[in-house]
Amino acid sequence: MKIHNFSPGPSILPQSVFEKAAQGVLDLNGSGLSILEVSHRGKDFIAIHEQAKQLVKELLQVPDTYHILFLAGGASSQFFMTPLNCLPQDGRAAYVDTGSWSSKAIKEAKRYGQVDVIASSKADGYKYIPKSFTVPSEAAYLHLTSNNTIYGTQFHQFPQCDIPIVCDMSSDIFSRPVDINRFGIIYAGAQKNMGPAGVTLVIIREDMLGKANRDIPSMLDYKVHIEGDSMYNTPPVFPIYVSMLTLDWLKDQGGVKSIEEINQQKAKVLYDEIDRNPLFIGVAAPEDRSLMNVTFLLKDQALEKPFLEMCKQIGCDGVKGHRSVGGFRASIYNAMPLEGVEALVGAMQQFEKQMG
Amino acid sequence: MKIHNFSPGPSILPQSVFEKAAQGVLDLNGSGLSILEVSHRGKDFIAIHEQAKQLVKELLQVPDTYHILFLAGGASSQFFMTPLNCLPQDGRAAYVDTGSWSSKAIKEAKRYGQVDVIASSKADGYKYIPKSFTVPSEAAYLHLTSNNTIYGTQFHQFPQCDIPIVCDMSSDIFSRPVDINRFGIIYAGAQKNMGPAGVTLVIIREDMLGKANRDIPSMLDYKVHIEGDSMYNTPPVFPIYVSMLTLDWLKDQGGVKSIEEINQQKAKVLYDEIDRNPLFIGVAAPEDRSLMNVTFLLKDQALEKPFLEMCKQIGCDGVKGHRSVGGFRASIYNAMPLEGVEALVGAMQQFEKQMG
Repeated sequence: MKIHNFSPGPSILPQSVFEKAAQGVLDLNGSGLSILEVSHRGKDFIAIHEQAKQLVKELLQVPDTYHILFLAGGASSQFFMTPLNCLPQDGRAAYVDTGSWSSKAIKEAKRYGQVDVIASSKADGYKYIPKSFTVPSEAAYLHLTSNNTIYGTQFHQFPQCDIPIVCDMSSDIFSRPVDINRFGIIYAGAQKNMGPAGVTLVIIREDMLGKANRDIPSMLDYKVHIEGDSMYNTPPVFPIYVSMLTLDWLKDQGGVKSIEEINQQKAKVLYDEIDRNPLFIGVAAPEDRSLMNVTFLLKDQALEKPFLEMCKQIGCDGVKGHRSVGGFRASIYNAMPLEGVEALVGAMQQFEKQMG
Repeated sequence: MKIHNFSPGPSILPQSVFEKAAQGVLDLNGSGLSILEVSHRGKDFIAIHEQAKQLVKELLQVPDTYHILFLAGGASSQFFMTPLNCLPQDGRAAYVDTGSWSSKAIKEAKRYGQVDVIASSKADGYKYIPKSFTVPSEAAYLHLTSNNTIYGTQFHQFPQCDIPIVCDMSSDIFSRPVDINRFGIIYAGAQKNMGPAGVTLVIIREDMLGKANRDIPSMLDYKVHIEGDSMYNTPPVFPIYVSMLTLDWLKDQGGVKSIEEINQQKAKVLYDEIDRNPLFIGVAAPEDRSLMNVTFLLKDQALEKPFLEMCKQIGCDGVKGHRSVGGFRASIYNAMPLEGVEALVGAMQQFEKQMG
């Protein structure tokens, strides 16, 4: 049975990427060596790393004033690395609180300077994206979480402001075009639209650096990683390799503009069914609905178990909602084909018939 | 042609591990899902992670007073995390400087308290392991690098002292039995004897914690990772999976005592040839020679290129020495079979005939 993986992350990647990655584990480009054993300073991996950077640059149209880093670990490390590197001790930074990950970023930033939470939807269970707020022009940056995996909300437009935006794009990077010039830093854990867990992409504009005037351990210093071209120490070779393969696949799909259209189509099919099917109801405010993580509830909570059982039977995996929201969450990242979404919609319709 | 991979790290892993890892990338345990897309909180990965911890515990006979963590990134992060977590601001720590990695650990530790470098072989090009030094009993810990990849030296006995040893065992962990009770912390980047790049094993005794009294970002706090069982955030799933496979292979080989005997045999074959062959000379002091990284020179430097060419022709890869030492370095970690060492010795003998 074909399994449709709706997990929020680590999450589905393209089948062709799995096949190429498995081949690389056995024999990288006919070298007789595995990607797991080659030196990170050898020509094979140097070429992979260069290609990965080039694909990021090309897909997101990143100008030369930005550095592209692949750092070990997850976006959680950027929660403190960003203020550590970019928030002066006597400075302030503005944060918008749109969920659990924003809150964690805020908590870590408070160690390094004044943090102004200028907007929050916490009181309403993070069901919407705050819109009418003023961004203080004296702040070093405005921090946003572009997509909120748990609640299923997404910034469809980024707020206008005069200061650089620092954005956690872990769960929607490469899903749509963005105007990169609005951002001072974009960071994203790989394990949704880019690759497997274990590496984080950091895109950082040169002018964000050198302002914090703080003693920083080498491994936490963006400048050290920029000078070392992400190879100050041994990088996470395999996660970078698979990220390169995934970005190459995305380029073959036509890039972020093309994938955005497919993502819009997939999300529409699922949200339309949520809105039509009398058993279900969406979680997020309609205007802020995420194209990546679709959250929905059964009006009758008692039906959750049998619906999850049906999902399992038809091979829809990972649709159980996060414990803080309950219900269901279908993560439909770039690599999820329309066919998978249709399978889930089919289950919802079949469930309606059974219950009706 | 069979390639013998003598790279210092990332480095050779067992062939059976490559095969199992490739299978896991295509289909993990018949689940229909790739190891690259499964949730880190799903039952498949939970089982993998538990097995990895259990194997560490079993292979190194780790008592229950120790925590076993798999953290993202490399040992370089432990250079500052160890003092950040364990060196009080008004405290001191003792370091032995046996090479480039020790030096980096010393540099990072100086941010957090008084660092006493109680012994160093730097003046002699790190060719030996300092032996006669006194360990101050008031220090929070003694930091050692058990094996020095670049210079080819190794602690064959750990110094006697009353304070806990913090040891970077990146390049010789699991190569021999160690008396774990001597150590407060053992850390090791995976990419030599344990797995691919992207994860670091940290074994930490409970009594090392809670003494630094310092505000620590969540992602840098050992306690946070212990409480989260290495899953405070998404861990590097695939590097942990391959580490588990490699440790399972090691268990099948009979564990660390058995592999130590094979490692001794392999090293003897190579060092005997270096000592016998009139063209070559060893780098490290004989009593401190590493069983993992064998460093040697050609007495006539002009012959380096033709010898490297011959190595390449017979499939011996990665034997070029580190730029700071020159010559050659054969890394013969656990997964390097005797056959590979014999191929290299064959090349040395053939080269002697050609030159003679």
